[in-house]
Amino acid sequence: MLNGEKKIARPLRWGMVGGGRLGQVGYKHRIGALRDNTAFTLVAGAFDIDPERGKDFGVNLGVDESRCYENYQTMFAQEAEKEDGLEVVSIATPNGTHYEITKAALEAGLHVICEKPLFFTSAEGEEIKALAEEKGKIVGVTYGFSGNQLLLQMRAMIEQGKIGDIRVVELQYTHGFSSTEDADKFNDAQKWRVDPKIAGPTFVLGDLSTHTYYMSKLIMPDMKIEKLLCDRQSFISSRAPLEDNAFVMMHYENGAVGRLWTSSVNAGCMDGHRIRIVGSKASLEWWDSKPSELRYEVQGEPVQTLIRAMPYLDEQCNADERLGALHMEGLSDAWSNIYLKFAVAIDAKNRGDEETLHSLVYPDIDAGIDGIRWLENCVRSAENGSAWVDFSDQPVGSAK
Amino acid sequence: MLNGEKKIARPLRWGMVGGGRLGQVGYKHRIGALRDNTAFTLVAGAFDIDPERGKDFGVNLGVDESRCYENYQTMFAQEAEKEDGLEVVSIATPNGTHYEITKAALEAGLHVICEKPLFFTSAEGEEIKALAEEKGKIVGVTYGFSGNQLLLQMRAMIEQGKIGDIRVVELQYTHGFSSTEDADKFNDAQKWRVDPKIAGPTFVLGDLSTHTYYMSKLIMPDMKIEKLLCDRQSFISSRAPLEDNAFVMMHYENGAVGRLWTSSVNAGCMDGHRIRIVGSKASLEWWDSKPSELRYEVQGEPVQTLIRAMPYLDEQCNADERLGALHMEGLSDAWSNIYLKFAVAIDAKNRGDEETLHSLVYPDIDAGIDGIRWLENCVRSAENGSAWVDFSDQPVGSAK
Amino acid sequence: MLNGEKKIARPLRWGMVGGGRLGQVGYKHRIGALRDNTAFTLVAGAFDIDPERGKDFGVNLGVDESRCYENYQTMFAQEAEKEDGLEVVSIATPNGTHYEITKAALEAGLHVICEKPLFFTSAEGEEIKALAEEKGKIVGVTYGFSGNQLLLQMRAMIEQGKIGDIRVVELQYTHGFSSTEDADKFNDAQKWRVDPKIAGPTFVLGDLSTHTYYMSKLIMPDMKIEKLLCDRQSFISSRAPLEDNAFVMMHYENGAVGRLWTSSVNAGCMDGHRIRIVGSKASLEWWDSKPSELRYEVQGEPVQTLIRAMPYLDEQCNADERLGALHMEGLSDAWSNIYLKFAVAIDAKNRGDEETLHSLVYPDIDAGIDGIRWLENCVRSAENGSAWVDFSDQPVGSAK
Amino acid sequence: MLNGEKKIARPLRWGMVGGGRLGQVGYKHRIGALRDNTAFTLVAGAFDIDPERGKDFGVNLGVDESRCYENYQTMFAQEAEKEDGLEVVSIATPNGTHYEITKAALEAGLHVICEKPLFFTSAEGEEIKALAEEKGKIVGVTYGFSGNQLLLQMRAMIEQGKIGDIRVVELQYTHGFSSTEDADKFNDAQKWRVDPKIAGPTFVLGDLSTHTYYMSKLIMPDMKIEKLLCDRQSFISSRAPLEDNAFVMMHYENGAVGRLWTSSVNAGCMDGHRIRIVGSKASLEWWDSKPSELRYEVQGEPVQTLIRAMPYLDEQCNADERLGALHMEGLSDAWSNIYLKFAVAIDAKNRGDEETLHSLVYPDIDAGIDGIRWLENCVRSAENGSAWVDFSDQPVGSAK
Repeated sequence: MLNGEKKIARPLRWGMVGGGRLGQVGYKHRIGALRDNTAFTLVAGAFDIDPERGKDFGVNLGVDESRCYENYQTMFAQEAEKEDGLEVVSIATPNGTHYEITKAALEAGLHVICEKPLFFTSAEGEEIKALAEEKGKIVGVTYGFSGNQLLLQMRAMIEQGKIGDIRVVELQYTHGFSSTEDADKFNDAQKWRVDPKIAGPTFVLGDLSTHTYYMSKLIMPDMKIEKLLCDRQSFISSRAPLEDNAFVMMHYENGAVGRLWTSSVNAGCMDGHRIRIVGSKASLEWWDSKPSELRYEVQGEPVQTLIRAMPYLDEQCNADERLGALHMEGLSDAWSNIYLKFAVAIDAKNRGDEETLHSLVYPDIDAGIDGIRWLENCVRSAENGSAWVDFSDQPVGSAK
Repeated sequence: MLNGEKKIARPLRWGMVGGGRLGQVGYKHRIGALRDNTAFTLVAGAFDIDPERGKDFGVNLGVDESRCYENYQTMFAQEAEKEDGLEVVSIATPNGTHYEITKAALEAGLHVICEKPLFFTSAEGEEIKALAEEKGKIVGVTYGFSGNQLLLQMRAMIEQGKIGDIRVVELQYTHGFSSTEDADKFNDAQKWRVDPKIAGPTFVLGDLSTHTYYMSKLIMPDMKIEKLLCDRQSFISSRAPLEDNAFVMMHYENGAVGRLWTSSVNAGCMDGHRIRIVGSKASLEWWDSKPSELRYEVQGEPVQTLIRAMPYLDEQCNADERLGALHMEGLSDAWSNIYLKFAVAIDAKNRGDEETLHSLVYPDIDAGIDGIRWLENCVRSAENGSAWVDFSDQPVGSAK
Repeated sequence: MLNGEKKIARPLRWGMVGGGRLGQVGYKHRIGALRDNTAFTLVAGAFDIDPERGKDFGVNLGVDESRCYENYQTMFAQEAEKEDGLEVVSIATPNGTHYEITKAALEAGLHVICEKPLFFTSAEGEEIKALAEEKGKIVGVTYGFSGNQLLLQMRAMIEQGKIGDIRVVELQYTHGFSSTEDADKFNDAQKWRVDPKIAGPTFVLGDLSTHTYYMSKLIMPDMKIEKLLCDRQSFISSRAPLEDNAFVMMHYENGAVGRLWTSSVNAGCMDGHRIRIVGSKASLEWWDSKPSELRYEVQGEPVQTLIRAMPYLDEQCNADERLGALHMEGLSDAWSNIYLKFAVAIDAKNRGDEETLHSLVYPDIDAGIDGIRWLENCVRSAENGSAWVDFSDQPVGSAK
Repeated sequence: MLNGEKKIARPLRWGMVGGGRLGQVGYKHRIGALRDNTAFTLVAGAFDIDPERGKDFGVNLGVDESRCYENYQTMFAQEAEKEDGLEVVSIATPNGTHYEITKAALEAGLHVICEKPLFFTSAEGEEIKALAEEKGKIVGVTYGFSGNQLLLQMRAMIEQGKIGDIRVVELQYTHGFSSTEDADKFNDAQKWRVDPKIAGPTFVLGDLSTHTYYMSKLIMPDMKIEKLLCDRQSFISSRAPLEDNAFVMMHYENGAVGRLWTSSVNAGCMDGHRIRIVGSKASLEWWDSKPSELRYEVQGEPVQTLIRAMPYLDEQCNADERLGALHMEGLSDAWSNIYLKFAVAIDAKNRGDEETLHSLVYPDIDAGIDGIRWLENCVRSAENGSAWVDFSDQPVGSAK
């Protein structure tokens, strides 16, 4: 059980690109990184595309004014001069800038933590992966929901055969906040998401369902997709070619089948992620709107509801526990769990501790690339009349 | 609000083919038909393939021994001789016999109420429809779940524009009772369902999801399918070619999309039907495991839960109310609602009352044929590599 | 599992006093009694205080016009003359008439099934009990909710020690339909309930919570109340001295404690009965708004939800099953279960089958008297400044 | 909406007494205080009764070794010498030490944040209140659950008349973790809670239900208790005279009635707080196991579920919002909200800003004293045969 004591020798010197006052995501990064003050310390930032607003904001967060930079290039350059300069940077900017900022950060000798979807193409992902390896740096991806520890309980139970052979995978992440065109026009955090130049080749597939897809991989690391089919729609026509609703069907190599629904036009839905894994003996179901409950449904037995933090849970699940049973954890705790693992990974990388790196389960660059590849295949299917496509491990696009 | 008072001049003389002691469905028919003793009276039956057991059973139900017949042929022949002979017969036998028994019943001058899926082919359906018209008889289909009155509330709200334009249709009817092969071997009510000669070209698609499909049509009578794709699996391989799990995707003519999941291998699932209709403004969601609750989710407003029997519901919904608010209704009430409508339809047909027939909403032969046609298209897609197929209104198979 | 086959040699000839067109409760009796047509046949009735309306109503139910009587006195007298006259009568009239009608029925040689609360005083109850014994007749009480079969599962699990020693009993039956004075003025079914001359010494305690109290006795037959305290309110002051809200606290002889809340001013509550029994090892919780689910919460283990009709349930629970798992049962099924037991009891009484009578669990006259006595003690406490009173087994009032 | 930007000029220098490695509550304080690094900075601590373990722990939290003290006396003395010494201290020790540590801290010139129940007697509370006033310091009480912002929504809706006049208050905070005696023997965090010398005159009443009681006051600031009755039990007899289960009944001055159930022997219960406020028009219900949902049940209308962070909520509710809709907040967010208000209060006190102090809603010393007084009255009733007692505003015990 976590209680805030240090997991690494000293907190890492951390900065942010983006994540300023107008968006919502930056605060999640800070809550995640700074939870215990023993993993990261916020020392610098280029928080905003508007440098003045960014500086004001950074100072208000307690960052020294001299280290609130006007842009990431300056930050990387000036911090590199300092003895106590940045060690790791989080990128919380619109998708279209992830690649170039990540590349610049790695080249400046920084570890990187980046928002999802990581880049536009898996080729970019492979290029960055090679660069990170060359530089000896970590690239983590903020699949923040994946820090909910009951997902690790699902992983453990599946590994232990508690549901038998996996047959059906049912994934959903939908909301209805974009049911009308209003948000596209008036909400800065939404505008760029429907612009392919900035958002990339997808809207909700990349914005929402890459989370859910990664969570499914976290839970079922051994399941490989054989082929998939994606049917996507732009119910608000101005969003085309980007989709505001999509269905994906998947065939896995072991004979299992899967479905995913992602949407920003599921009017009135306030449920978030839903994940159900059906096995030959039992099913597991978890919803992030009730993050402390996991349903375990053995065919022919009473339905079981497992409760977060209880001693009967697997130790890999309870290792991330912070508050104890009856005390609700939420998304801020999930982000804290992920960021703590980033810190442990970076520290291990710095120390050359391959054993820790090997055993640590967290969203690394491979998870980021896998997410892009899944999107590429979805788009390929959708553009091919929503036909089945073999799930390709090859990059579909080409790197810049 | 219903209270058992007669809706037709006198109860109809009713009999059953099948529905004997070993199966579970016959009792649902009797509960449905006999609820108030003012719509139907059970006067005869050929309840069982084992004539002795059938006779013993019928007598135990209170049927006169002389009218417990060894088979339906004898029943139809001998009852036709009586002045107070059968007027209507319900068919609760395995699928493969529905066509011939229905045909014989119509030819014997009887109205027919038949289990789903109605027949194997839509061509058979069209032939029987023509025969029923010629004979001036009703053919009803026991989509028993469709008697849950909150479905009529959904229908009314959609018609009144309460959710805006329909965008997404999400249908599910799954359970896990066939997760292993055991039931196929040891349970008489299950054995024939996995034998294509008796069950027809589908297992769960016909056995489970024709219910859900009909319910979607009841709720959204104006929605037409343009094309669909069906992906089906036989997780218990001995069931092949019949499926124990299937996913269907649908495109509707108005641009809406839909999904359906049906399964008998959804291990541990005890939920029954789930129906969600997403509109441009709001969604409606109903689960038959909570049949007295309807969720109405207007984007941007508090989630509403509408409760069965409350005065704020539409009058077409409350017209079928029996018990009053706070008093749970269930499947037996739903069947009663359907059977009462069959009685009203038969009475209207007998009286030549076309106005009543025209306005009455109940699962008639067109609903039965539509269900077969949907199955035909599902099978066509599945056999074509789970590819998209245009939804054909033409019979796919040919009549015997 | 029940399927409608006869449990007794032939259906009993049954009639009703009250239960006419304007009230809601009569239909529940008829649904309950007539479910399978093998337990009761409706042959006569004095359905309404307005004889014409009552006759019209009875004919509409299919009762022979000559046996639709203008009042119960005439019915009892004339039916007694017939060879195929009434054998049993149900009384569904306002509380204040139960005693005299029951007495008249017994004296006319009829078995009686009566609405709750049975009478005004336990002394009346004892007198009627003696009369029934003298006449060799059954008096049953329609605690209709008690037919929900998961209550028998609770009884079995408690008897088997599955929750350990009982410590806390938590009972609730509340709604909000009388939050304003409107219903008192405009609703015939409500008006008399707030008039002590007709309703007796209580409103919601008798009208609502005698159900819940009986259900608690059904579940925990061995628990005896030692003392209780009742605090009651008339939030609509015109209802005083009758209460529209009451809290009861109970101490049981084994050291357990209990609470009950009953209310008709719990605004917006649509939940019905809630029963939770806390033991030293585990708790059981059942709500009649989800009648097919029973929560079994073992301290330190995953929460279990037991589902109606599943094979893992106790046989005394599943003996009352009608529809099978995944098929919702509701209040009409519960009433059917109770009425079937009344029929079995009456038949056993007629045959002198004491063994059946001894083992059959159903709401008999002792249950009715116990309910009155509980009310008497509640009123005694309330009128004594809501002080603790020893639970007296002695009649508090005196018989007329 | 909060995003981590500073609310006060600079973070307060903060320390802890208690809250070390073996307990669970200290981490909640740190999560609460340090969320944004703009309200508090952890600079010192006497974390543990075992000085070595406390020092090791403090260093592991990042506190300078020289400021990890062996006891609070030393800490207060030495910090007072420093120019950048402590400004505020949180007390997370067993109940019996709160009074003396609070007194010492105030005398050392520190603001105080203290665990509940604040002290053993209200006389102590009044004495400390006077001392705090004299010293110009704040004493806050960590009713951590009260930071759930939907409680402020309830407060706003009640104030705005959205439920009408309050009639019934239903409070519950129960769990089953002490169903057996094991925890008393083997769990350090539990042992002292059943020892009256350390825990004070109550176990679960003080440990659990003072939270719920305060939450009810937060929601309904205008409701005054007129009299109450408390019935308490020690199901594990070794706990006597301290209770492991208690029922409280309350009469309010406006004619409303209330109930509270608190228990640590509610076997299997994993629900936490439940609060329902019934008004003459509608009810509000909130459970901390679903902290992002608030049920608003208007009699005669569909049940509404209000979702945290939605724009339709009151601004005083959304002012505390951190993550945005669909993103679950939990107990750590609630503690952060409370601690942020402590910081604002302390800063206002330091600046002499009475206006801020007057309008800020947070658990201050009056809330702490009110909680003790409620406990005193509960104990007085319980010891008087669970009789009704007038709710006294006078201290019952006497200060040391």
